Amino acid sequence: MQKSPEEEHPQKAVGWAARDPSGVLSPFKFSRRVNGDKDVTIKVLFCGICHSDLHNVKNEWGTALYPMVPGHEIAGVVTEVGRDVTKFKVGDKVGVGCLVDSCRSCDNCAQDLENYCPKLILTYNSIFYDGSTTFGGFSDKVVVDHHFVLRFPDNLSLDGASPLLCAGITVYSPMKYFGFSEPGKHLGVVGLGGLGHMAVKFGKAFGLKVTVISTSASKEKEALERLGADSFLVSRDPDQMQAAMGTLDGILDTVSAVHPLEPLINLLKTNGKLVLVGVPDKPLELPIFPLLMGRKLVAGSGIGGLKETQEMVDFAGKHNITADIEVISMDYVNTAMERLAKGDVKYRFVIDVANTLTS
Amino acid sequence: MQKSPEEEHPQKAVGWAARDPSGVLSPFKFSRRVNGDKDVTIKVLFCGICHSDLHNVKNEWGTALYPMVPGHEIAGVVTEVGRDVTKFKVGDKVGVGCLVDSCRSCDNCAQDLENYCPKLILTYNSIFYDGSTTFGGFSDKVVVDHHFVLRFPDNLSLDGASPLLCAGITVYSPMKYFGFSEPGKHLGVVGLGGLGHMAVKFGKAFGLKVTVISTSASKEKEALERLGADSFLVSRDPDQMQAAMGTLDGILDTVSAVHPLEPLINLLKTNGKLVLVGVPDKPLELPIFPLLMGRKLVAGSGIGGLKETQEMVDFAGKHNITADIEVISMDYVNTAMERLAKGDVKYRFVIDVANTLTS
Repeated sequence: MQKSPEEEHPQKAVGWAARDPSGVLSPFKFSRRVNGDKDVTIKVLFCGICHSDLHNVKNEWGTALYPMVPGHEIAGVVTEVGRDVTKFKVGDKVGVGCLVDSCRSCDNCAQDLENYCPKLILTYNSIFYDGSTTFGGFSDKVVVDHHFVLRFPDNLSLDGASPLLCAGITVYSPMKYFGFSEPGKHLGVVGLGGLGHMAVKFGKAFGLKVTVISTSASKEKEALERLGADSFLVSRDPDQMQAAMGTLDGILDTVSAVHPLEPLINLLKTNGKLVLVGVPDKPLELPIFPLLMGRKLVAGSGIGGLKETQEMVDFAGKHNITADIEVISMDYVNTAMERLAKGDVKYRFVIDVANTLTS
Repeated sequence: MQKSPEEEHPQKAVGWAARDPSGVLSPFKFSRRVNGDKDVTIKVLFCGICHSDLHNVKNEWGTALYPMVPGHEIAGVVTEVGRDVTKFKVGDKVGVGCLVDSCRSCDNCAQDLENYCPKLILTYNSIFYDGSTTFGGFSDKVVVDHHFVLRFPDNLSLDGASPLLCAGITVYSPMKYFGFSEPGKHLGVVGLGGLGHMAVKFGKAFGLKVTVISTSASKEKEALERLGADSFLVSRDPDQMQAAMGTLDGILDTVSAVHPLEPLINLLKTNGKLVLVGVPDKPLELPIFPLLMGRKLVAGSGIGGLKETQEMVDFAGKHNITADIEVISMDYVNTAMERLAKGDVKYRFVIDVANTLTS
């Protein structure tokens, strides 16, 4: 007979879990494995809420395992390390992102691209090697192999830094890979949410000209004055879009709703690159002629490997980049999810887990 | 009053033209400009029939200018050069591809990417600077600025070499740009027509492993034995496609009909590239999740610049690469167009213009 989540492992744990596709979260008792030789146990201090958490708790991608403890933007402090762990010690400020394991032997893993490993194990809603379900950071503690633990620099506050581990790396990785980190390039950022606002910050730190592209003119002041974008385009304004045709070297498209690609492709110069990091639940329409007429490309990118994630966190430390956040208590999480669904957050909810999660 | 095509320019010319969207071609008298200081006059010996000629004569892209003399795979011999022309002399074996002019001053032209110049002038069905319509190679002679003339190496026969100037460069350029020319890479070629068969030949010359992907199992023997491909996949066979998942570094997709991209994306390794060179008349469905799961990309590419086209012709000369062709007489052109529409040609029709076009 299968053991209950509470009895499965020796270490008692508490968190909030969704139980069904309503997505409503409530207190949940479960357990964590004993800290192994290569493991790090982390007391969770903060956990960001990612848009994918919303998709997952409602089973919108059809892959939900209930009960589900979401959360993969985890920041906390080390409370125990295994005897083979040399990189971390008790008291270190650390974090865990979307991954807690991968096969370590495939071509992807060998190239520090654990994020593309076909056998990757996600921080939550994944099946671990022992057959148990992984549970995320909406909980008091996590036990994670040291390879999948990131170190935060001292100058970053952990609440604002926690979203770096998903929102941050999701935009940073393609910016590096597709050449959007070369000073002087002109980057478009589509959508000004959790991912988009990080892309603007990284873009400015890289020395780019950054244009925010949004359906909503109301975000212009915010984009230019608060986030430091250089210009703003209202995607629903055909005159503005026409005037900007052929001006961008690249576009990072963070929108996860179905939306037209052709107007974005038209903004690109020859050899321009449109990179999608949002996950629309239906295929998008791809017009071919506009791609051919300028050797343009449409690509996808998903988070990043561990080595690059640490590089990104260090870069964020050097440039003092954190997410703009609204810190909430654990019992506000269902309201936060509703507000997130409406885009009503600037720009990331972060749960103050340590101070508000009661056992 | 506008002059007739026959009276517009001083040099008498003859060819075959389509007069309306029936696409039926018939003998046509028109005229060519006097050979200017930078011009080369070429007696047309051979002209390939490109699939785009079929789209154009029937106005399937909605841009037809009638009467239309198609043909942009022109091979011939120089009969006159302007006083500023030093690269060519009378008697040289030369050719003209898809372009006869461009602005010469934009970023694209400055980077030898005249093919992406927004003001490019196509070899036919385009408006020249003097307001006249350009006429292509289904004709006895062409007068072209020397910058847009290519030189054929002596070892290539002009009939088989003429398709290099569109079919050849259309596949060679993206193979170089997207890294499909690095020895040992595994390339998929979708569609075994005029473009696809050239891609296999260039792929083998680059030292690639080449897999042909086709809806038709009947092409397997041909692909492997005649063209030298390493393997063959029937795209309609789910078992074969499943077994080949994640094995290709890149795919060159030459199909111009609407077709599903997801099965092709699934064949790619992490960082794999699917490059489209056909022009479907409707948008294709682009699934986003499969792109994200391996940082894959879908790109378009259109012909190539003049510098690269000459490089490709020289490479073809070195490796003795020409198209597999069926040489036809001018008065067979309408039958050839019908057969082309059905894919009934191995692999390119080439018109023996000099011997069969009567004035």
